[in-house]
Amino acid sequence: MSTSVNSAVSACPESGDLGVTHGPIEGSTKRYLDRDGLRIPQRRVHLTNGEHLDLYDTSGPYTDADADLDLERGLPPTRANWRRPEPVDGAATQLAWARAGVITDEMRFVAAREGYDAELVRSEVAAGRAVIPANRCHPESEPMIIGKAFAVKINANIGNSAVTSSIAEEVEKMVWATRWGADTIMDLSTGKDIHLTREWIVRNSPVPVGTVPIYQALEKVGGDPTALTWELYRDTVIEQAEQGVDYMTVHAGVLRAHIPLTAQRVTGIVSRGGAIMAAWCMEHRTESFLYTHFAELCEIFARYDITFSLGDGLRPGSIADANDAAQFAELRTLGELTAIAKSHGVQVMIEGPGHVPMHKITENVRLEEELCEEAPFYTLGPLATDIAPAYDHITSAIGAAMIAQAGTAMLCYVTPKEHLGLPNRDDVKTGVIAYKIAAHAADLAKGHPRAQQRDDALSRARFEFRWTDQFNLSLDPDTAREFHDETLPAEPAKTAHFCSMCGPKFCSMRISADVRKAATVDLTLGAP
Amino acid sequence: MSTSVNSAVSACPESGDLGVTHGPIEGSTKRYLDRDGLRIPQRRVHLTNGEHLDLYDTSGPYTDADADLDLERGLPPTRANWRRPEPVDGAATQLAWARAGVITDEMRFVAAREGYDAELVRSEVAAGRAVIPANRCHPESEPMIIGKAFAVKINANIGNSAVTSSIAEEVEKMVWATRWGADTIMDLSTGKDIHLTREWIVRNSPVPVGTVPIYQALEKVGGDPTALTWELYRDTVIEQAEQGVDYMTVHAGVLRAHIPLTAQRVTGIVSRGGAIMAAWCMEHRTESFLYTHFAELCEIFARYDITFSLGDGLRPGSIADANDAAQFAELRTLGELTAIAKSHGVQVMIEGPGHVPMHKITENVRLEEELCEEAPFYTLGPLATDIAPAYDHITSAIGAAMIAQAGTAMLCYVTPKEHLGLPNRDDVKTGVIAYKIAAHAADLAKGHPRAQQRDDALSRARFEFRWTDQFNLSLDPDTAREFHDETLPAEPAKTAHFCSMCGPKFCSMRISADVRKAATVDLTLGAP
Repeated sequence: MSTSVNSAVSACPESGDLGVTHGPIEGSTKRYLDRDGLRIPQRRVHLTNGEHLDLYDTSGPYTDADADLDLERGLPPTRANWRRPEPVDGAATQLAWARAGVITDEMRFVAAREGYDAELVRSEVAAGRAVIPANRCHPESEPMIIGKAFAVKINANIGNSAVTSSIAEEVEKMVWATRWGADTIMDLSTGKDIHLTREWIVRNSPVPVGTVPIYQALEKVGGDPTALTWELYRDTVIEQAEQGVDYMTVHAGVLRAHIPLTAQRVTGIVSRGGAIMAAWCMEHRTESFLYTHFAELCEIFARYDITFSLGDGLRPGSIADANDAAQFAELRTLGELTAIAKSHGVQVMIEGPGHVPMHKITENVRLEEELCEEAPFYTLGPLATDIAPAYDHITSAIGAAMIAQAGTAMLCYVTPKEHLGLPNRDDVKTGVIAYKIAAHAADLAKGHPRAQQRDDALSRARFEFRWTDQFNLSLDPDTAREFHDETLPAEPAKTAHFCSMCGPKFCSMRISADVRKAATVDLTLGAP
Repeated sequence: MSTSVNSAVSACPESGDLGVTHGPIEGSTKRYLDRDGLRIPQRRVHLTNGEHLDLYDTSGPYTDADADLDLERGLPPTRANWRRPEPVDGAATQLAWARAGVITDEMRFVAAREGYDAELVRSEVAAGRAVIPANRCHPESEPMIIGKAFAVKINANIGNSAVTSSIAEEVEKMVWATRWGADTIMDLSTGKDIHLTREWIVRNSPVPVGTVPIYQALEKVGGDPTALTWELYRDTVIEQAEQGVDYMTVHAGVLRAHIPLTAQRVTGIVSRGGAIMAAWCMEHRTESFLYTHFAELCEIFARYDITFSLGDGLRPGSIADANDAAQFAELRTLGELTAIAKSHGVQVMIEGPGHVPMHKITENVRLEEELCEEAPFYTLGPLATDIAPAYDHITSAIGAAMIAQAGTAMLCYVTPKEHLGLPNRDDVKTGVIAYKIAAHAADLAKGHPRAQQRDDALSRARFEFRWTDQFNLSLDPDTAREFHDETLPAEPAKTAHFCSMCGPKFCSMRISADVRKAATVDLTLGAP
């Protein structure tokens, strides 16, 4: 990597000598479970009453106080030493192995990480109901599983655009997003240095990395969609595959025949990949090369174990266009492509909308499961209304929580800048936290065995006025503490039996604790 | 009103000479529909293509550039000149008149405001499925309706606590909250100057004002719940009734027998009113005076047409406690009290939780409707998880949208400071916008006839790159514009066919517009 890039990275704010944010999250330490030689990362929250809570941890070595970090060298290639089974019918993929009854180290890792049995992981992967995106060229990653039987995952999009931001900022955004809980990141860079930006991100990413290869292909032809060719696209995919990209969005479901279905829409085609392919089909008056060459793409994906994220190029961009003929015609094509990919042993997930009013959300999941063999659904929100630009992390967290409860396996975050501009570091954090909320709310609703532990621990801390524990158990300890301290900054307030919201006389929790004491006495004495 | 208070009001920031924020919202003007002599306020958003959109408007004269405002004088007492029918069986209430077949001016006003027939309003009020909180001593208010057949409403809590804030800030918070869309406000002040603070708020509030009289009663006895008496409480209610409070939260459903049901809870009793009454019952070893004197309370409410908001003193304060025996035992008692209130001709709504995981939300609505004769449900969120203090406007917007879709008529907002401290002006705005999102998402899902007009207008503006229109049609034009301008501040960018999120080459909407043009040509020519 060039030194000029490195010096740019070192210029990151609040990042110290390393160039990116690092060190434990407030009140927590990093630890590793040993499972038959696999080191399973966890974040341990230490409570003031001597107890602790261990949490799923996506942040990689960056939150380990003892880690030896060096962005130029990249993260240690942990998976390079793991057992690698023989390919099955040419496919060296988690899907092929799962079908052959093999439990891989990746499967054991994700099972231990979530507290499930490794055999459940294998069977869900074998059925195509879950995927483990893990390119063999990305040995630095800590495997994770995406499927409705497991905890709901979230993705954070990063990436510069032609208008703004630098490589250094993008690496920091990746570290920052995973610090707050992003389970995967997608590098959607579209500007210059696209290859180098991705190299820095992949080498330093502890989570799977996704891309949309058509963006780089378009850069190569100077931004003219009609100048794209299959060969150029294929070579771009191989270039990214070699770098270690774990999953790729491919808009192969946008067929020429679908385009007229978008003509009467309020917002036409809002997916960049979808619009690019539509422009190509229109110009060449022929079928999409992504569709006609799909089998060749599968052969490439099978060699690296890249997971398809079949893009919804015709997703609705407004409430008016939700669940329309264009959207569902494409979904049917994605079902067809799912079967082809799986016949090559390639893992598949399906992308979903977008903008959908609440009463039309469930239908999306039902139809996706029916048409796409229950492949994991991966949705962008959806936004439950169009009327709140600057707050679309909220409009979409509503839709995301509901669609995850209905069975969506991974949620692509939306930041407050959606529709308005490129997110900065604060926006990335806000988007990640909003989506951790949506995902966790769905885990609670679906009864994930570990989910409610955290709510209960935090609520017990709240009721017992252990303010520091309440902060440290929260999704964002720093902001919770800051908000509390705005009105009651003094250290004694951290154990005070009230806060500034109600003041000392009106604290229901204090009165309630008194009532409980009295009630216990009454009950003991058998009083009426 | 004292001059010292007025000078405090004048010290408000960003409020000019008047003392509070005023003037039209960016891109809009105030207008009034004339309906048989009633002036129905609307906010007209002016679009750059010559079109306009008229919106429901809660902001009162403060957003009217021509209004003659004076906080010391208060708002003009519009309703003082409206027709006032004779009492029916001693009750001069919207419920009594509706049952007698009378369509009041208040009913005509709310019907015109929402675009419904006045007879529908009358029949919903008569059935007790909707309420119009309008104390005859608050003639300054612009009537609004709360009921599941109508647009979902939101309430903003304001009020100082013993720890912080002043009267001036509270008046400004009321004006500020209604500017952004609060349909009612509750004054939850608990500190000193409680009577005077409320006087300023009511005289200047264009929306119904709610209170929790037990808070002031508790102030009168120096903060000791056990020193409360029925007589003191009754006199406090009358004092507030004379001031013009439109609805009052009464925790009359917390019975002595319910208290032991909270003993094993993770977070006990989290409602202030609930905790106060439980402490009283425990100390006196007798039934709650709110319950034993409920009929007397109804007689007072009937004289002023105050609406009951029957408080859920035993609402769950954590995911663990949701939908438990204590909560539903109280709800059954609220059903009993609903029947009593209605037999006195008094309007009733029922308060609801709190903290509820998504899969337990619908049950709350179903049971409330079954037990409380479909009285309008008025819920605080609910929060869909406990783990995100500092983001509880989001955790609760998820629950609020879902419970509103299921039939809740009004949502009490939650700000980012919930559980941590008293909200400031920015927090109030954030809470209001988050709840406008939840309410509007539910209106869309329920098919409110006017709801989708705004989404469609905004999305059309978005697709046509009318940036200014997109901002002005949004819930918060100022922040949308500010976010856009962070990366593309130049004026030409306001009509540019891209933004900094994707940059010019990758704008799907631009490509899509090109595709549409080409497709139209193709279709016209009958090409394949």
